[in-house]
Amino acid sequence: MKGVLLARNPKAQVIDLCHDVPPQDVRTAAFYLRASVPYFPPGSLFVTVVDPGVGSTRRILWAKSKTRQFLFPDNGCASWLEGVEPLLEVRHVADSKLWLKDPSATFHGRDIFAPVAAALTKGLAPAKVGPKAKGLVKMPFPVVETHGLIRRGRIIAVDRFGNAVTNLRAQDLRPGARVDFKGRSIGAVVANYAQASEGAALAILGSAGFLELSIRNGSFAADHGARPGDPVDVS
Amino acid sequence: MKGVLLARNPKAQVIDLCHDVPPQDVRTAAFYLRASVPYFPPGSLFVTVVDPGVGSTRRILWAKSKTRQFLFPDNGCASWLEGVEPLLEVRHVADSKLWLKDPSATFHGRDIFAPVAAALTKGLAPAKVGPKAKGLVKMPFPVVETHGLIRRGRIIAVDRFGNAVTNLRAQDLRPGARVDFKGRSIGAVVANYAQASEGAALAILGSAGFLELSIRNGSFAADHGARPGDPVDVS
Amino acid sequence: MKGVLLARNPKAQVIDLCHDVPPQDVRTAAFYLRASVPYFPPGSLFVTVVDPGVGSTRRILWAKSKTRQFLFPDNGCASWLEGVEPLLEVRHVADSKLWLKDPSATFHGRDIFAPVAAALTKGLAPAKVGPKAKGLVKMPFPVVETHGLIRRGRIIAVDRFGNAVTNLRAQDLRPGARVDFKGRSIGAVVANYAQASEGAALAILGSAGFLELSIRNGSFAADHGARPGDPVDVS
Repeated sequence: MKGVLLARNPKAQVIDLCHDVPPQDVRTAAFYLRASVPYFPPGSLFVTVVDPGVGSTRRILWAKSKTRQFLFPDNGCASWLEGVEPLLEVRHVADSKLWLKDPSATFHGRDIFAPVAAALTKGLAPAKVGPKAKGLVKMPFPVVETHGLIRRGRIIAVDRFGNAVTNLRAQDLRPGARVDFKGRSIGAVVANYAQASEGAALAILGSAGFLELSIRNGSFAADHGARPGDPVDVS
Repeated sequence: MKGVLLARNPKAQVIDLCHDVPPQDVRTAAFYLRASVPYFPPGSLFVTVVDPGVGSTRRILWAKSKTRQFLFPDNGCASWLEGVEPLLEVRHVADSKLWLKDPSATFHGRDIFAPVAAALTKGLAPAKVGPKAKGLVKMPFPVVETHGLIRRGRIIAVDRFGNAVTNLRAQDLRPGARVDFKGRSIGAVVANYAQASEGAALAILGSAGFLELSIRNGSFAADHGARPGDPVDVS
Repeated sequence: MKGVLLARNPKAQVIDLCHDVPPQDVRTAAFYLRASVPYFPPGSLFVTVVDPGVGSTRRILWAKSKTRQFLFPDNGCASWLEGVEPLLEVRHVADSKLWLKDPSATFHGRDIFAPVAAALTKGLAPAKVGPKAKGLVKMPFPVVETHGLIRRGRIIAVDRFGNAVTNLRAQDLRPGARVDFKGRSIGAVVANYAQASEGAALAILGSAGFLELSIRNGSFAADHGARPGDPVDVS
């Protein structure tokens, strides 16, 4: 991908957002996009190639927000930008004249995304990539449920440190709130890792604005078998 | 390596080709070079430091193709460029005046490859790196065998998704061809991953032009114990 | 971090030093800093975010050597620069006007280190980051002990190949010196990996100037259970 990008736009500045998305994991891609996009320079183009449907009839989409552009497969990976970085226009990347010839069935990142990204960063009018698109595949951001005095969230991502990120936010946590995971008490929310003892599970408001379950200098996900979708209760 | 390169050529644009070559795995390096080189800009210099012989008497080589340059240890890692990116001239990187002083015995990437790459990208005449070289170590690209109606290929690389890449090409596959691995039927070649069911083994023409064995949203290599050198039959 | 850096200084050249520091491993960070810093261009700024104390009262520090700058948490990770790259001035990164607003408790790399690094690389006078700092947390470089005719060193780092790096240097090795690890003889120091047989343990002077224990085309750390702090004897 980098070869194709730089062959067509030698001035492109290519940044690896991360090397940590598990293969084909659309949900983790959605989380990293949501968490990262607002921090990148206006004018950035995000190329997201977490693409289990590569080579099938799934569409490749272009979109723009107020100040940034996006290329992504139509699999829901951009859904969680809603409310953070609203997409104002979406197009179907359909004009194969912009692609490498005879694209492979397994690596559209190199054969379609990269040459289209090169063209867009060189100033191609987005309307040239293809027609406006509707009916995007949606992956709804998990809803926090209320059960009496309990708020039930869900783990939405696990990072490379083994931190389990939930969909619970500061507004879901009343003063003195206590956190439970799989029937085990994690205790009150701490202000920083150093407030917990080495190896102890803790809950903390993480850098994406969500409650995270962690182990100080350890991996919560590994020790507690935490996986995306698992419920987390706050009372 | 990046420090040495940028200290000597601050304008060098350094690209990490991949972080996935298993330590000392010359065959995987050969595969990635073959698969990647044609996509990179003319003028690129490829620095390949998969180098189990570091510090011994193995030579370090410079080579050029029609539009690109290469630095690599003389261990066969550039052999598979044959037929894709022919090497037109090869030299022995022998002039130690270009190297860091007192090179270590374990990290020629930093002490020899990087300073020579910096000099070449700043315009050093390649003849200055050392004399022309002959008698390169060769690692022949595996031959597809024919046994009656069966074509027998070999796995040549396993990527980070667990896809097992073979040396079989489209021309080895007759219409309706069926694929077998270790006595187990993988079935007919599919056109894209989505044609297989979740978790099922499949055969597909991959992005390097070779037949690959995969599991949709899984790892073929992990589930089937596939390793480089293993035979794959097409009938 | 890269988004914040480039949003504030689009001309910054961002280099990933490595992706191999185990989470929260201050000692490994200290080793890579010591081993790498001297090879980077004068004018480089090193941003070290191995930071188990993030969000607590631990200080963030700025320092300069003769030709380079550093940002790091006050946890000892810069201690091993002593004797290699002496720090001439140290300041407490205290002026929150330079930071992102409302920094998180878990990702000061993005919220504090990155914007301060962007400002410094754009020419901010270092005195503006905060007041001079004293009483840094120190992590002393392990001392080589002498027991009769034996020199006892320690493993200080394990790299991604499984090489175990010790604190022993050439000056600790007399001609014909023999190396022992956990009561097992590793033999004499070899001049290069190729002098050992495939799979055999060996001792070699590594690229950071320290004696390393390795297995040719294998992992010494995995096979011998070597970990930082383990003693290594030379007789």
